[in-house]
Amino acid sequence: MTDNTLATAPASRTALTLLGTGAMGTALARAWLAAGHPVTVWNRTPARAGALAAEGAAVAATAADAVAASRLVVVCLLDDASVGEALEHADLTGRDLVNLTTGTPAEGRTRAAWAESRGARFLDGGIMAVPPMIGAPESGGYVFYSGSRALFEEHRGTLAVPAGTRWVGADPGFAALHDVALLSAMSGLFAGITHAFALIRREDVDPVGFAPLLASWLTAMTPAAHRTAEQLASGDYTTGVVSNLAMQSAGNTTLLRTAEEQGVSPELLTPYTALMARRVADGHGDEDGVGMIDLLVRPGA
Amino acid sequence: MTDNTLATAPASRTALTLLGTGAMGTALARAWLAAGHPVTVWNRTPARAGALAAEGAAVAATAADAVAASRLVVVCLLDDASVGEALEHADLTGRDLVNLTTGTPAEGRTRAAWAESRGARFLDGGIMAVPPMIGAPESGGYVFYSGSRALFEEHRGTLAVPAGTRWVGADPGFAALHDVALLSAMSGLFAGITHAFALIRREDVDPVGFAPLLASWLTAMTPAAHRTAEQLASGDYTTGVVSNLAMQSAGNTTLLRTAEEQGVSPELLTPYTALMARRVADGHGDEDGVGMIDLLVRPGA
Repeated sequence: MTDNTLATAPASRTALTLLGTGAMGTALARAWLAAGHPVTVWNRTPARAGALAAEGAAVAATAADAVAASRLVVVCLLDDASVGEALEHADLTGRDLVNLTTGTPAEGRTRAAWAESRGARFLDGGIMAVPPMIGAPESGGYVFYSGSRALFEEHRGTLAVPAGTRWVGADPGFAALHDVALLSAMSGLFAGITHAFALIRREDVDPVGFAPLLASWLTAMTPAAHRTAEQLASGDYTTGVVSNLAMQSAGNTTLLRTAEEQGVSPELLTPYTALMARRVADGHGDEDGVGMIDLLVRPGA
Repeated sequence: MTDNTLATAPASRTALTLLGTGAMGTALARAWLAAGHPVTVWNRTPARAGALAAEGAAVAATAADAVAASRLVVVCLLDDASVGEALEHADLTGRDLVNLTTGTPAEGRTRAAWAESRGARFLDGGIMAVPPMIGAPESGGYVFYSGSRALFEEHRGTLAVPAGTRWVGADPGFAALHDVALLSAMSGLFAGITHAFALIRREDVDPVGFAPLLASWLTAMTPAAHRTAEQLASGDYTTGVVSNLAMQSAGNTTLLRTAEEQGVSPELLTPYTALMARRVADGHGDEDGVGMIDLLVRPGA
């Protein structure tokens, strides 16, 4: 099967191996197959790789065989421990290992050192997309990459097939750091949306009519991130403040009283209002909210 | 001073009274004055109204005098208690009272009944803007209105001078409800942004370069509100789910482990991850996140 695939693929398309054919791995493999890349796949549960064989992928019997089949090896497994386990008996010498497995920055750094000690170049990636966004450039999905710049530059065209590419640095922990930072921010956004819908849940307000008001308001507020970044960079937290922390903190009482009135638990709101109150109590009521960032970071961390 | 202002104003501009000349009240007064409306102002601390006199406003000695000067009375005070106090000795008969004071939905409803019992029509408003956005249509600032539809329609042109107008219903609590719901959601968004910057705070990552990645990701995620609304309206929380709650909840462990690695307190993240885990434990792991909304609303509320 491998031979057949290789014979019919355009010579210009880089062959690659993909370890892990869960929902994301399968979407990645399909995008590369559709673009004419010879793809060798392996999955711990072989049945899950079967559908890809019908679409032209070569299915390897072991992870070591799959790694032997291509210089470029993309890994998309459940977690970092699964990566170590799958590659335990593989010869990584001369391989270009691209790790798209979800993990923490420290895992990315440790895995990079491990891969390099076994003779491979290493690139870590953080996928900012769900499977339906893979191979669909109009979806806006992309992948953060960090680690070996040489590997990234050499394979950039191939890596760009399933999703956009964004280089974030030579530190192999930075892809995961950026990935997790954006997903954490999204979880705050979703917490806010959840609380807002809870407030109208028992009222005669049509959620479908309410959603555009909510979404456009939040979209209009996201540029606050730019101002926060500039204040962090300059260290000046007070110049040009329109609504200072003391005013915002006083305004929070209306949010909390409304939650109480509407019978809505304030649990998603209170950590932020409490952090703000703490910053004001520390004597920073004349500042913008940026100082709360410093309160979250443990001294010496 | 009142006579002089009235004499020079175009006949087509509605005269109005504004109670409260704090930062927001002053911005509102300036927008109406600039558009040629005769404006009578009153403030508990008279000095704060003085600057507006130089710009053409009539300054009333008492709130009752100010109310007597115009049929349309706009109130923008510190809180609902201040509204009751300021208007205690005013004759509201035949007045059109527009309350832009920040408050809760219940305060809006109680204040509406109070105003109507004193012979006034009543409209409550929730301002979705900070003072610099007032009188600047390009800023996108606007005001939610609810209560007397007749009052709203009759004065819509005048109300539209300082900021856009959005009608949200005859229930006088709905303006505050919409206002607070959007501000609460924004506080979740800002909590997420705060946590994201904390994660990169001790790393060699330029916050100014990071901000556009963060802002564009969050902007891309806000349309999730539409899907949530459709699921709430239909009561179907499982059809078409891409990343279900069980998968999302498992993914949260990476967010929490990363916070720990980076020395960042997880306090802004944990209430949402805990709520999600609770919904999964309740047997809803195959759903989208919308069911968490129901968990927040107290039974019988």
